[in-house]
Amino acid sequence: MSEFSVIEQYCTALGASHSGTEIGVGDDAAVVAVPPGMRLAVSVDSMVEGVHFFQDAAPNDLAWKLLNVNLSDMAAMGALPKWATVTLTMPQENHLWLADFSAELHRAATQAGVQIIGGDTTRGQLNISLTIMGLLPKDDVISRSGAKPGDDLYVSGTLGDAALALAAIEQRVALSAVQRRVVEAKLHRPQAQVALGQALLGFASAGLDISDGLLGDLAHIAKASQVSVEVNADAVPVSQVYREYQNAGGDLSLALAGGDDYQLAFTASAQHRDSVLAQAAKLGVEVTCIGRIVPLSSTPVVVLLDGKPAPELSHSSYQHFD
Amino acid sequence: MSEFSVIEQYCTALGASHSGTEIGVGDDAAVVAVPPGMRLAVSVDSMVEGVHFFQDAAPNDLAWKLLNVNLSDMAAMGALPKWATVTLTMPQENHLWLADFSAELHRAATQAGVQIIGGDTTRGQLNISLTIMGLLPKDDVISRSGAKPGDDLYVSGTLGDAALALAAIEQRVALSAVQRRVVEAKLHRPQAQVALGQALLGFASAGLDISDGLLGDLAHIAKASQVSVEVNADAVPVSQVYREYQNAGGDLSLALAGGDDYQLAFTASAQHRDSVLAQAAKLGVEVTCIGRIVPLSSTPVVVLLDGKPAPELSHSSYQHFD
Repeated sequence: MSEFSVIEQYCTALGASHSGTEIGVGDDAAVVAVPPGMRLAVSVDSMVEGVHFFQDAAPNDLAWKLLNVNLSDMAAMGALPKWATVTLTMPQENHLWLADFSAELHRAATQAGVQIIGGDTTRGQLNISLTIMGLLPKDDVISRSGAKPGDDLYVSGTLGDAALALAAIEQRVALSAVQRRVVEAKLHRPQAQVALGQALLGFASAGLDISDGLLGDLAHIAKASQVSVEVNADAVPVSQVYREYQNAGGDLSLALAGGDDYQLAFTASAQHRDSVLAQAAKLGVEVTCIGRIVPLSSTPVVVLLDGKPAPELSHSSYQHFD
Repeated sequence: MSEFSVIEQYCTALGASHSGTEIGVGDDAAVVAVPPGMRLAVSVDSMVEGVHFFQDAAPNDLAWKLLNVNLSDMAAMGALPKWATVTLTMPQENHLWLADFSAELHRAATQAGVQIIGGDTTRGQLNISLTIMGLLPKDDVISRSGAKPGDDLYVSGTLGDAALALAAIEQRVALSAVQRRVVEAKLHRPQAQVALGQALLGFASAGLDISDGLLGDLAHIAKASQVSVEVNADAVPVSQVYREYQNAGGDLSLALAGGDDYQLAFTASAQHRDSVLAQAAKLGVEVTCIGRIVPLSSTPVVVLLDGKPAPELSHSSYQHFD
């Protein structure tokens, strides 16, 4: 055992406990059962100090965000998140930090129905990583490659608040204290759209989560589906604070190309329009049609403003702050 | 996309390709099918510069070792390794490093039948992590908790060479150039006993892989199985180079309490003795009986020399070099 065994004490037996988990933390590997008729969806995301978060980031916010950026990948596939492994590298044993981090990871994972079944801890620059595993029906998945010309294009929630918060923190934008509080919560506490993802199984033809900025992420759908995407910029949903920012002279670029939204962007054929909206309404999740899929052209993502091409809005995608 | 997309180019589509992989790298999550009658074993291990390896470590050795320390956890459970996700944090884009690392990860994963189905890359202190997933029959596993009084205790291979190499690198021990080359290969290129682990399913009553040092790891079996373990120190198998080191005055402590061996320690009832040895012989793997399981006493791991308790040999377990 290394001197870091104390970390393991904090990071053991976290999250929900499942009947599907036959051996949990404490052996060489965990053993889980995938129910008959289901497949396994697997994804991993890391967060590194100075790249994905500032040095003074609150450990409970980091635990929340680490889990949710991974939950968001499950949401994008329509998968039900079940298990996760966590790695934690930190410069020295900091019991207060560990207590906050592990308590919030436990709380958030339990709330999401996820069990932490493995982990590894080491000394070094702060670096946290989570591999998430979820269940998908054998015959259903939301991939990036199923969009067809004529499909509607939707996003969940509102976009741009996390990027607006980052701009305010970096003093590129001036916000009031109240405005900052609202958008910083979006940056530090994204809420993955897990229930929506599952509700869209069978309706969405393609989808992904918006982590690197709407336009850049839509380009992934265009490429994987061999189509082009038309986005009506004026339809892109933004928050009240974002509207205030626009009224003070801000433009749409943070909503179109900012990152860290962790909302879903997805496509569905017109015949499913009522079902999509009904599913979203049932969950109390805002879903907005922002465009449509068109045949592949030389421009994978076309941005329209008042129905006319607005190439000046076709910003490149988000770069993490570093 | 971050400026690190170039890393993704190196770390995509690595390893074996499986019929069980329905969606691989390139979507929000990979999707894999666990065959009927099988369960999933999951484990994660990280390696951080300055803790698990020196700054000048060769990238191909790191890729090999990262995979094998994780394969070793699958071996310990008797699982068949199938899929992995990888995270890579590095200070700057280094194409030569990435080419070497990813080529070796591809080669070693392919050889082991493992497909890399996901990954994440970031900038920061060098930190590599791998989550491995493997298959286990529904009704069989080698856990730490099944050892019973009367069972034989075995280890595979020889022990102590990796710790001896580290001692030589740190100039605590003097070895010849040839001796160093032999033991450094054991430190940098451990070979997980995957085939042996699977062959032991149904015969081994308990087992784990020796990563933190034999005695410390046996204490895990003792605790999980609620038994004590008797180890005959004179029976612990060591290499020719280790014998030379002993002839020059070295003792057994590196073999008993050193780390990074990645051999299996396991128990089996006497009735399976012939089967255990036959399975090992069929695979060409050396397996040695080094003791037995006894009823729980106040000492979880008792070290015997010439049949008598040798408490001076009951060293504490390995600490990673830092």
